[in-house]
Order: sequence, then structure tokens, then C-alpha cells
Amino acid sequence: MAQADVAIIMGSQSDWPTMKHAADTLDQLGVSYEARIVSAHRTPDRMYDFAKGAKDEGFKIIIAGAGGAAHLPGMTASLTSLPVFGVPVESKALSGEDSLLSIVQMPAGIPVGTLAIGKAGATNAALLAAAVLALQSSAIETALNKFRAERTAAVAETPSDD
Amino acid sequence: MAQADVAIIMGSQSDWPTMKHAADTLDQLGVSYEARIVSAHRTPDRMYDFAKGAKDEGFKIIIAGAGGAAHLPGMTASLTSLPVFGVPVESKALSGEDSLLSIVQMPAGIPVGTLAIGKAGATNAALLAAAVLALQSSAIETALNKFRAERTAAVAETPSDD
Amino acid sequence: MAQADVAIIMGSQSDWPTMKHAADTLDQLGVSYEARIVSAHRTPDRMYDFAKGAKDEGFKIIIAGAGGAAHLPGMTASLTSLPVFGVPVESKALSGEDSLLSIVQMPAGIPVGTLAIGKAGATNAALLAAAVLALQSSAIETALNKFRAERTAAVAETPSDD
Amino acid sequence: MAQADVAIIMGSQSDWPTMKHAADTLDQLGVSYEARIVSAHRTPDRMYDFAKGAKDEGFKIIIAGAGGAAHLPGMTASLTSLPVFGVPVESKALSGEDSLLSIVQMPAGIPVGTLAIGKAGATNAALLAAAVLALQSSAIETALNKFRAERTAAVAETPSDD
Amino acid sequence: MAQADVAIIMGSQSDWPTMKHAADTLDQLGVSYEARIVSAHRTPDRMYDFAKGAKDEGFKIIIAGAGGAAHLPGMTASLTSLPVFGVPVESKALSGEDSLLSIVQMPAGIPVGTLAIGKAGATNAALLAAAVLALQSSAIETALNKFRAERTAAVAETPSDD
Amino acid sequence: MAQADVAIIMGSQSDWPTMKHAADTLDQLGVSYEARIVSAHRTPDRMYDFAKGAKDEGFKIIIAGAGGAAHLPGMTASLTSLPVFGVPVESKALSGEDSLLSIVQMPAGIPVGTLAIGKAGATNAALLAAAVLALQSSAIETALNKFRAERTAAVAETPSDD
Amino acid sequence: MAQADVAIIMGSQSDWPTMKHAADTLDQLGVSYEARIVSAHRTPDRMYDFAKGAKDEGFKIIIAGAGGAAHLPGMTASLTSLPVFGVPVESKALSGEDSLLSIVQMPAGIPVGTLAIGKAGATNAALLAAAVLALQSSAIETALNKFRAERTAAVAETPSDD
Amino acid sequence: MAQADVAIIMGSQSDWPTMKHAADTLDQLGVSYEARIVSAHRTPDRMYDFAKGAKDEGFKIIIAGAGGAAHLPGMTASLTSLPVFGVPVESKALSGEDSLLSIVQMPAGIPVGTLAIGKAGATNAALLAAAVLALQSSAIETALNKFRAERTAAVAETPSDD
Repeated sequence: MAQADVAIIMGSQSDWPTMKHAADTLDQLGVSYEARIVSAHRTPDRMYDFAKGAKDEGFKIIIAGAGGAAHLPGMTASLTSLPVFGVPVESKALSGEDSLLSIVQMPAGIPVGTLAIGKAGATNAALLAAAVLALQSSAIETALNKFRAERTAAVAETPSDD
Repeated sequence: MAQADVAIIMGSQSDWPTMKHAADTLDQLGVSYEARIVSAHRTPDRMYDFAKGAKDEGFKIIIAGAGGAAHLPGMTASLTSLPVFGVPVESKALSGEDSLLSIVQMPAGIPVGTLAIGKAGATNAALLAAAVLALQSSAIETALNKFRAERTAAVAETPSDD
Repeated sequence: MAQADVAIIMGSQSDWPTMKHAADTLDQLGVSYEARIVSAHRTPDRMYDFAKGAKDEGFKIIIAGAGGAAHLPGMTASLTSLPVFGVPVESKALSGEDSLLSIVQMPAGIPVGTLAIGKAGATNAALLAAAVLALQSSAIETALNKFRAERTAAVAETPSDD
Repeated sequence: MAQADVAIIMGSQSDWPTMKHAADTLDQLGVSYEARIVSAHRTPDRMYDFAKGAKDEGFKIIIAGAGGAAHLPGMTASLTSLPVFGVPVESKALSGEDSLLSIVQMPAGIPVGTLAIGKAGATNAALLAAAVLALQSSAIETALNKFRAERTAAVAETPSDD
Repeated sequence: MAQADVAIIMGSQSDWPTMKHAADTLDQLGVSYEARIVSAHRTPDRMYDFAKGAKDEGFKIIIAGAGGAAHLPGMTASLTSLPVFGVPVESKALSGEDSLLSIVQMPAGIPVGTLAIGKAGATNAALLAAAVLALQSSAIETALNKFRAERTAAVAETPSDD
Repeated sequence: MAQADVAIIMGSQSDWPTMKHAADTLDQLGVSYEARIVSAHRTPDRMYDFAKGAKDEGFKIIIAGAGGAAHLPGMTASLTSLPVFGVPVESKALSGEDSLLSIVQMPAGIPVGTLAIGKAGATNAALLAAAVLALQSSAIETALNKFRAERTAAVAETPSDD
Repeated sequence: MAQADVAIIMGSQSDWPTMKHAADTLDQLGVSYEARIVSAHRTPDRMYDFAKGAKDEGFKIIIAGAGGAAHLPGMTASLTSLPVFGVPVESKALSGEDSLLSIVQMPAGIPVGTLAIGKAGATNAALLAAAVLALQSSAIETALNKFRAERTAAVAETPSDD
Repeated sequence: MAQADVAIIMGSQSDWPTMKHAADTLDQLGVSYEARIVSAHRTPDRMYDFAKGAKDEGFKIIIAGAGGAAHLPGMTASLTSLPVFGVPVESKALSGEDSLLSIVQMPAGIPVGTLAIGKAGATNAALLAAAVLALQSSAIETALNKFRAERTAAVAETPSDD
């Protein structure tokens, strides 16, 4: 049984500079997670085993990031009933428009809650996971409210030239 | 205190033919919900009051649908720490591409878990909400697994000309 | 052991009006095929079993059609070393642009030879499959050349108002 | 009561390098303004207070810049009857296409007069604000005509290689 | 000297079903206007004369609608210092995306305040014009506030199936 | 009376690095030209005078380059019956997609023969102008054929790593 | 030797409802033409022979219409030094965006003067051909000026509800 | 008679940095190939001769890469019945979106199996060619399976910060 509430999976090591923002945000919120590389295309068996076993491992939420013809979030969602949040990683030629459409346009029946392209999306996947976990955990609710309040307080009144 | 776990909000009566699919799906899953019209642009005060009070009303999840320059999901998410799932309603000229980008491309800090454009997205927002609630409710988990199993079983082996 | 050289798979019965053009074309060319519904999202186990076993079933080529966040062609290609040709089925909101990008933008390592959106793509997937099979079969080569010659001959010299 | 005719608001300090061009242009035209950071997503209360009170503060026109899922211009417009001009700030992945659609595609009832993506748009928002103010101020009308005449005069007859 | 505050111009009779929504909205608000066909491409001299003389005719604001390679709003703006609001008319092949980009992407120096594609944009151009005129007219301000309040009041609390 | 057959006009000095390729190509082909800055937006009077007088100046063909909401080619075409060839200059945010649509999507009645975005388009505008002039000039025809033959001969048989 | 100045070629009978507008316009202008079906893909030899021989047949200008992956205009241009004007025919799934890019984005060296998508483009290809021919023919120049003047005169002053 | 099974053709030396990935991959798999420059636009005669003679030269598969208005893959496919796989080379302004649509949207009758934009597509064209050849060659089948297994084995379990 995993100790972690959230699984952060990604299709490739090259997605880590993006997905690391999900991990960093969960760290700030005190949410436990594990980060793994699970490629839908290069390691389909690993993906099947991971997704089918994720609930039994104790995960409550899966954050999946991928780029281009990004199949990892949707395939994971088809293999588990846990909530899956998808992060479209920015692709080279098409800037993540392909990643976004490959993740968000899932057919009726298998949802992927999709966040913005790139780092903002990875950060927000973590915040959304925390919002879900906060329904059951007052500690995470408190951490999330503190995180949001700090960010609100950090907004300056006027723009600065420096 | 509301009896409903899920709030389904939409910007306009014209979004209902789309968002009704979220309501119908929650009905099938035995998940309680309330459907309301809350326009970010025409009734900003109502939106503000709704979003600020949603947690106190007892809602656990908000499903928000809107089209065009769709601000309802993101603004609601900025006013509550509850999980918000967004449904891009198909728009006339741009077929929902504007709705999708207006909802999904949220900046780091305020997440909206975005589903597909149109009816499939509305159905899936309900399924994602159920997946979240299933983390706390074995009844919903059972209903969700049954729903998925029935849909899997309904897939024919071969295509039919009739 | 299957008698068929080509497997035509599709994510849903609703893809059949498109994919039927692949079947009809293979019929015209005298190429054997089987058509099956294999949904990446609703029947992932069936997809897994099909793709892993396709070579042992005797298939030489797989034609896979899907729409929206179309994962069937790419996932099949990740599970077999047989050539996979993908047909982007026209989707409702985005007219198949999502289908196309979800199929064609595969990462290095797992190819899907992608055809045009919709019926033309389905017809052409069959012709491409026949071109591959013609490398080993003079009967198919002859049928393919005849098919092409007839289509060339059918092009009128001048446009007609009726 | 503010001394300024124009409020320049933006969602983030990071929008200032773009929005500064609005401020600089208003400076050149002798139009008074105040620049503030008002984030729709991180400081929704500040946005509500600002937009509801802008007329009472004495502002006549609001220039609002934001990027990505840009909700600031439209939400401000829903909370005030003052004219709102929107500037789509260039976003990272989608180059401001998301910003543009999120601002310009407002539903019937709440207008945002939208300018071009990026610096040109910020400059033009200032010029459009000046054109509106010139309806009541011959000083601004004179300054605006002088500004335009100087720019016309500055266009060389022939291109230069240096 | 014209009696009308607003000129509604359009490139073609075929734009009238769209632009009529601007006229109808101005009628509701008690704002005077004249509607004219002024084609940038077929009647460039008429456009030149109109735009150069609009201020002397007494117009305060110009609403210009056009589709496709829509040059009317921008060219009018280059020939007058009056505020120009542009309405992208929905085009056949590209659904108004071409109209939108042709109008909104003006270079620094010549602004066009651009509204949404199609009828919503035409309605909103009228509302934006009224907001500008309301800076000088308490009657228009009252009419505009009444218009907005009525629309807010007309939003039902819950969606209806009929 | 001008000595030049071709006028190369552009909206801004900043277009010259692109449009210079048209000039260089005409130089190579021995076609006479004049290059001028004529801004549709900043110098509309100059544009009217130029376009209306171009035929009397002796020009036979006009090459017009512009970027963003590119109105120069189409407006010039509306003011002269000379052939106008348009070059979409690459824009910053949208990479010339806006320039392309603003130039090519002209309504029935006023044609602009549009070339590719950027330098290739500028070169090709010159080649197309030469092809037109070659209908009347065997010297230009010979130069054009030589230019094409040299380019054909310059294509290596095999790619080279250096 | 052909009696016709203009060749109108198209890839398929299905392009004729679009390309007929080129023919009709040339008829109105008294310009001689021949319309032929020449498919780059189904009849490449016919295309080769046509394009290589077009100048010897006496044609001065080629108008080529095609849809989807539209290769006919560009390939014709690579095989002749006559001016080639391309008409992107509206395609089913992508509304002619594919046709447009396939025709206009020619590499440096081989120009295709591209017109708007669909019927407007076909009409304009004829007008552009006439403008080229008018450089050598005062009869065509007169007809073209008359055509334009009539269209200018046909623009009503005000829009009409009927 | 060629010794090579695969022809890699490209429109220009500038495509080689992309297409080299196809050659390198075939080298790794022990598949014989020849790489040639064959420009549809600058050397149409060479293209005709190559495509018409490719089967007689002994080639079994053609990999064709091109950018922009990319006509080489489709034209080659129209001139041979061998399987043609197309690689959209990334273009400057439109990032290969033009290349992709020009290659993939072939009309019914002439298929091009299209791979991803850029280097991933070139690698995958080689892998798809090998998959086709593996139907007849156990040596290539073995090499392909080894290639895929090594890539699967190379996927780390967890992401690394270095």
C-alpha cells in the first residue's frame, strides 16, 4: 500500500521539467505523492499495470502529463475509476495544441480533467488534486487556503518598472 | 445547508441542452445536484454570492458550463476552493474553440479541470465529479463502476450496417 | 489463425459509416479483412488483447479509425509491431482536427501512418494496405493497378454542368 | 475622486512590459491615468471593488490587459457601465490566441472593445481612449491629431537598407 | 450637420442581417444613428469621403462591420480620429476567423475597438457606443443602466426544459 | 512617366527585410521596379494617390507587402485595375496567419494574387510579376527561363551532411 | 494553337460548381478560355502534358482550382513559366484551410498567385487574369473597367430590410 | 536494379537535418536505403522519372519529406503504386501545420501514410517502413523487435532532476 495520495505520471523524462511544478506544489501543500515515468507508447504494459493497480496501491488521484499525441491521461482514465487530471506538455512544432486536444477531447464515458498547457497546468493539477483531497482532509484544506491567501496577498497594488 | 453534493451552473438557459447531460448522468449515478443559471457577465453579483457561499451551502463540487469568452468556470474557481470542473459549450462561429481556450488556459494558481467541448464534456464532468465523490462514498463508487461496466458491456464486437 | 490479412478496427459503431469505405475498398481489391469494434477507452482490455494477439491471429496490417481524442491507432501501434494505419474520423465540434492531431503526432518510436480526415482517409487506408500487401502478392498488385487505372480513365476531359 | 480619466489595469506584474505602452502613449497625449494590478483570478475581491467603484473614483475609461484565459476585461465590463477596452497579452504556448478569444468573444450584453495582441494593442487602447475623451476635450483632440500627424509625417518615402 | 451620433457602416447589403442588431440596440437605447453601405473594396472613394467627413457630419462614433479580408473598420479608422468599433461578420468558409484577425490585428497607431464575431458583436458595438456617449449624456446613461438591469433581471434562477 | 514596370510597396520600413527579396529577384531578372513605403493606415492619402495614379505613372504590376491586419494589398487593388500581388509579412504574435488571411480572403470583385508568408512569398511575387511581363517581353521570358533552369540545375542529387 | 487565352483547370468534376464562377466571369469580360479537368493525383500524366504544353497551346494564363491537399496549382506552376493563379476549393472537414495552405505556401522559386477560398476566389482569379491580359488588350481593359464600375454603381447607399 | 529497399527522398537539402533521422533509424535496423533530393517544384522531371521508375529500380517503399506547400509525397504517390510514407518538415512561419495538411489531406484514391511533423516523424517513417518489410523478412522483424524492446527497457522508472 502506497503512502502517497497522488500519483504523478508522465510519458517521458523530458516531461519532468514541466511536471516538476506539480510535485513542487504538492510539496508546498503537504500532499504526499509519487512521481513515475509511465509511457503509454513505449511501456504500455507498465501503463496497464500501473493504472489497473493504482487504487490498490492506495492512490486517490492521478496526475498525468504528456505531449504531442498525448494518450497517457486518457488511457489511464480508461483503466481506473480514480479521478485523472491531465497536463498537456508543450510540444515542439505545435506548442502543445496537439497535446491539449489529445487530452481534453475525450469521448463521453471516460473523463480527464484537463489543465492548461505547460507549467501553469502542472501547478494547477496539483492544486486541483489538493482541492479534491481537502474534501476529506482539514489539514490539506487549511494548507490550500493558506497557499491561496498568500498568493492573493502577494499581488502588488501597482506595477513596477524594476 | 444544501442536500446536494454537486452544483451544476451555467451562464445561460441556452447552455442547458448541453449541461442537461451532466444532470442526467448524475441522476443515473444517484449523485445529488442542483442546477442553476449563474451568468458571470449578466449576473456577476449572483456569481460572486454563489461561489463565495457554495461551500457553506454544502456543495462539494462545482460543474460550470459556458460558451464563447467563457469566464464562469474560472471566475467561480477564483472565488471558492472547491474543485471546479469546466464544460466548454459549443459556440456558433468558432465551434467551441473559444470556449475551450477561455476555460482551460487558466494561469497558475486557480485550476479548472476542463472537459471536452459540448455534450460529451458535460457527461464527463458528471463522471469526474462522481469519481471524486466515490473517494468518500462506496455507494457512488459502486454506481460508477456499474455505469462503466455497463458501457463496456454495451460495445458490440463488430460494426453493424443497420 | 485468421483468414484475413487486414483488421479494420474502430472505436465505436458511430465510426462505421466512415470506416465502411475502407471495407468497401478492400472488397473491390479482393483483400481479406475483418472489421471489429475495439474501443481504447470503453474496452481497453479488448484493445490490449486484440493488439497483442493480432500478429498471431494472422493479420498483417491494422487499419484503425477513431475520432476526438483518438487514442486507438496509437495505442494499438504501441502494442504490436504490425504496420498500423490511422483514420481520423470527423468529430462534431472540431471537424476532425482533434482526431488528426491525436493520431498523427505520435512520438518517435511508435509510428502510425495517418490518412486524411473522414471517408477519403478510410478509402486511402485500404489502398495503402493493399499497396503493402502487393509487395508480396501479384494478385493484389494487379487488382490495385486495375483499380487505379479505372479511376484514371474515369476522369472526364472537361467539366459538365449536369 | 481620482484625478485620472483612464484606469489601466492588468492581471499581473508580468503584463506590465506590454501595458506600459498604453501608459507611455497616454503620457504623450497628456491624458491622465492610473495603473493598477487587479487580478481577476488571484484578487477577485479587489477586482469587484475596483470595477464597481471605478465610476465613483472618477474614471471615464478602463483599459484592461490580461493573457491566457483572460477574464479581467470581460469581468470588469460586467461590473461597470464605463467603456472597457481589452488588450490580449501575448501568452507563452499559444502566442496570445487564447488571450484574444477570451477577451473578444463576449456574449451579447457586455462589450469589450478589443485591440491587437501585445504591445501594438496596448498602444492602440490608449489611442482609442484618447479618441473617446477627445469628444469632450479639445485639448486631447488637438494632442491626438498632432500625434497622428507626426506619425504620418515620419513615414519615409522609400525603404532604407540601414 | 447630421442629427445622428452614431454611424453604422457595413461593406455590403449581406452584412445587414448582422449589423441590424447594432441598429436595433441603439433604437432601444434611444441613441440616434444612420446606417449606410460603404464598401472599402467596391466603393473606396465613398469610404474615403465618408470617413474624412464623418466628424464634420456630426458623427461621434463609427460602428463598422465587414467580413473576410475585412478592411472597412481599419481603413475608416485611418481616415478619421473618431472612435471606430469593428464588428467581424461571420464569413462562409472560415466562420469569421478571417474577419476577426483582419479587424483586430491593427498596427500600433490606428486602433479599432473590436467586438465578437457576428450578431453578439453587433449588439455589443451598440452598447459600447452607448457607454461612450453616456459619458456626456445622462439620458443615455440612464437608458444604458436600465437596459443592463433588465437583462440581469431576466436571467432565470434555474434552467428550464421547455 | 515612370521607367519602372513594377512597384514594390510596403506598409512600413520594418517590412523591407522581407520585401527586399522581391527587389533582389527583380534585379536578377532585369525587371525595372521602384520600392516605396505606402502605409494604408498611417498614410492613407499617399496610398490613395499612389494607387489611383499607378497606371499613369507607367507601372504595370504592383507588389504589396504588409503584416498583421494587412490592408495595403487589398485597398490598393480596390483603387487600381492593375494586377496586384500580395505578400503576407510574418507578424510577431501570430506568425503571419493574420497577414495571410487579411490579404487572401478578398471578396468577389477585387482580387489580390497572394503569395506565401514571408521571404519566399516576396521572392515569388517578383517571379510572378516577371511571368506576367514575360507575356510581352521576350527578354524577360528568357531571363525567367534562365533563372528557373539555374535553380533546377542547382538541386544536388543527394543530400550532404556538411 | 488554342484560341483561348486562359485555361481553367480543376482536379475534379466536383470542383466545377466553384470554378464555374471563374468561367462565368471571363464570359462577362469577353475573355476566351477553356475549362478542363486535370487531376494532379488521378491523372498526373495529363497534368504533366497539359502544363508542359500550355504555352505552345497558346494559353497565356492558367487558373487552377483544387481542394484538400491541393497540388494542382503548384505542380502546374512547376511545369510552366506561365502565370498560374490558384483557387482553394472549400473542403469538407477543414473548410478549405487545407486547400489554402497547400496552394499558397509555395517555396521560393515557383509562385502561385492565390485567391480566396471558394467562389469568391474563382471569380477573382478570372478578374486577375483579365487584369493581366488588359496590359496587352485595350478591349479587355475596357471590359474590366466597365465590370468594376458597374459593381461600384450597384452598391446601394443604405441597407434594406427586404 | 537498386540494392536498396527504401528510397528516402526530400524536396531540398534543407530537409536533410530532419530526414537524416529516417536514414539513421534504417541504419540501426539494418534496412537498406538510398537518400536523394527530388524536388517536386524545382525538379519536376526528376520527380516524374524517379517515381515512375522506383519500382523498377527495386525500391519497395518510399519515404518522402517536404515542408510548406509539400507536394512531393502526394505527387510521388500519384506516380507509383508503391507505399509512400510522408514526413511533414517543420516550416518557418507555420511550424509545419501547412506541411502536415498538404501531405495528409490527400483525396480518395491516392494514399500517403503520414507521420508526425519533424524529426519524430522521420524516425517513425523508418520504423513504419521496417514494419512493412518485416512482413517479408524475419531479419528485419527481429531487428525491429529488438529496437522496440531496447527503447522500452530504456524508460526509467522515475524522473530524474539531472
